[in-house]
Amino acid sequence: MSILGIDIGGTKIKYGVVKSDGTVSHFSNIDFTTDVTASFLRIKDTTQGFKYKKVGICVAGDVDNKKGIVRFSPNLNWKNYDIRSAAEKVFKKPINVENDANAASFGAHVLDTKMRFKNLICITLGTGIGGGVIVDGKLYRGSTGSAGEIGHLTYIPEGIICSCGNSGCFERYIGRDGVIALAKRKIQSRNSQILKLINGDIDKITPEIVTVAALKNDRTAVEIWTEIGKILGVLLANLVNLLNPEVIVLTGGLSKAGKFLLVPAVAEMKKRAFKTPSEKVKVIISSHQEHLGVVGAAFLSKHTKV
Amino acid sequence: MSILGIDIGGTKIKYGVVKSDGTVSHFSNIDFTTDVTASFLRIKDTTQGFKYKKVGICVAGDVDNKKGIVRFSPNLNWKNYDIRSAAEKVFKKPINVENDANAASFGAHVLDTKMRFKNLICITLGTGIGGGVIVDGKLYRGSTGSAGEIGHLTYIPEGIICSCGNSGCFERYIGRDGVIALAKRKIQSRNSQILKLINGDIDKITPEIVTVAALKNDRTAVEIWTEIGKILGVLLANLVNLLNPEVIVLTGGLSKAGKFLLVPAVAEMKKRAFKTPSEKVKVIISSHQEHLGVVGAAFLSKHTKV
Repeated sequence: MSILGIDIGGTKIKYGVVKSDGTVSHFSNIDFTTDVTASFLRIKDTTQGFKYKKVGICVAGDVDNKKGIVRFSPNLNWKNYDIRSAAEKVFKKPINVENDANAASFGAHVLDTKMRFKNLICITLGTGIGGGVIVDGKLYRGSTGSAGEIGHLTYIPEGIICSCGNSGCFERYIGRDGVIALAKRKIQSRNSQILKLINGDIDKITPEIVTVAALKNDRTAVEIWTEIGKILGVLLANLVNLLNPEVIVLTGGLSKAGKFLLVPAVAEMKKRAFKTPSEKVKVIISSHQEHLGVVGAAFLSKHTKV
Repeated sequence: MSILGIDIGGTKIKYGVVKSDGTVSHFSNIDFTTDVTASFLRIKDTTQGFKYKKVGICVAGDVDNKKGIVRFSPNLNWKNYDIRSAAEKVFKKPINVENDANAASFGAHVLDTKMRFKNLICITLGTGIGGGVIVDGKLYRGSTGSAGEIGHLTYIPEGIICSCGNSGCFERYIGRDGVIALAKRKIQSRNSQILKLINGDIDKITPEIVTVAALKNDRTAVEIWTEIGKILGVLLANLVNLLNPEVIVLTGGLSKAGKFLLVPAVAEMKKRAFKTPSEKVKVIISSHQEHLGVVGAAFLSKHTKV
């Protein structure tokens, strides 16, 4: 049975027809617009040739999975938006709605680990730091569907104020803005290749540029990812000591730093976490980043009564 | 069906016959000795009049539940000790072995919340800070049975070195020694009632004495518990943002500080955690502390194939 998966983000809507083995046909994307019905109609149109029995949607925001509504999405500017009804009207099929990081986690469970592990944590490393927790092969939603706010664990109790209201969340230090802020501090007194790549305009620094410089063996760039990796390692150690997962999958734009991020993160985790669970856990970077949301949304609609 | 529950700690072995409604008959305790077989024989002897079909044991240490062995217990000085075989020889019944904090968590699920909630976290506040996670009404063990090391999440990344090898674990700040260290610092320049209670001998400070002083409205004592509570609140916020539980149960010696600890902890949690999950979660102090391990060990043996 194929399922249509739709991943609604702040700039793009990705979609594709997902088969029961996790492969995706007709994977494509359109720009996000506020006219959701028009977007759904266009997706329906371009997937006409494919048969699917259900539609699984994931959205960047706080989702009430039972009611099928988006409680709040600052990125999409939605509040209590009944996306399930909007989708039902267009597709005339059962609709399931999930948070995007939760869907990505289930996508990682399907694509990166072929469902071989029962307990998995996925961390999405981007502008925000999010994630999801798979327990016993099922998505763990918690009591109000809010579980998995991994980026809002506290790193520095009296640290930088976070948009969530807390102080010192991991997201402030290892999210996109945290990486940029650290890079700006680091290159000020250095002769780094990063400066050449941005033509001396410090406001043009991005995590991607830091990675490009690291690949050219720029010492400052490697140091930036090493520091970020060490902070990520504290977070990994927290997760390992609390939840003892079999695997942790990293995804999102920042995970493209690859070994520059992964190696120091795992080293710091092993330094900090208990021996038995930290030797057991595999920490990997997803090889299926583009598809995670679409595939996860589709698979979660399969496991949910609609 | 009644089950014999046995809770083996560093100084005492508690036991009792647990009925299917969680009530305990013949609850008693004996001193811990290294001659486990002698202890089991004595327990068998004193519970002769009661019928039970299984024996559930919990132990302060790292337990391999599948093999029924204690991998490591620094308190009891055991390493790879086959406690299941030792118990089988005496009781001639199916035996299940658990970690004591995990058993206490399941005990809290049975006794404090009458199994009304699917997702519960229990935190044991004593010399060590431990705990357990109940997901979907079942004990969550993780991939090597190591889940629930709540006290070894990091509070201060470059903080006090912990016995576990990490730096800055919550246990170092809000465990028994952390409370005593804070109390010693706080009373040095103060005219606190604590000083009277210990006859000026600063080495006699205990958390219990701080609570006695707090009950007499001693300002310093109240401040000590408020500071400890705030740190506990950071930990609670981490758990709420990550796992979105319906209830968090506090138990262990330090939880006897009651409102002096609970009120600032919950206030700090609400300040830090996401609104929806922090409004939903109930944080309570267990009313069944003495029985949690025995009842949890008994109930977990019921849910485990033996």
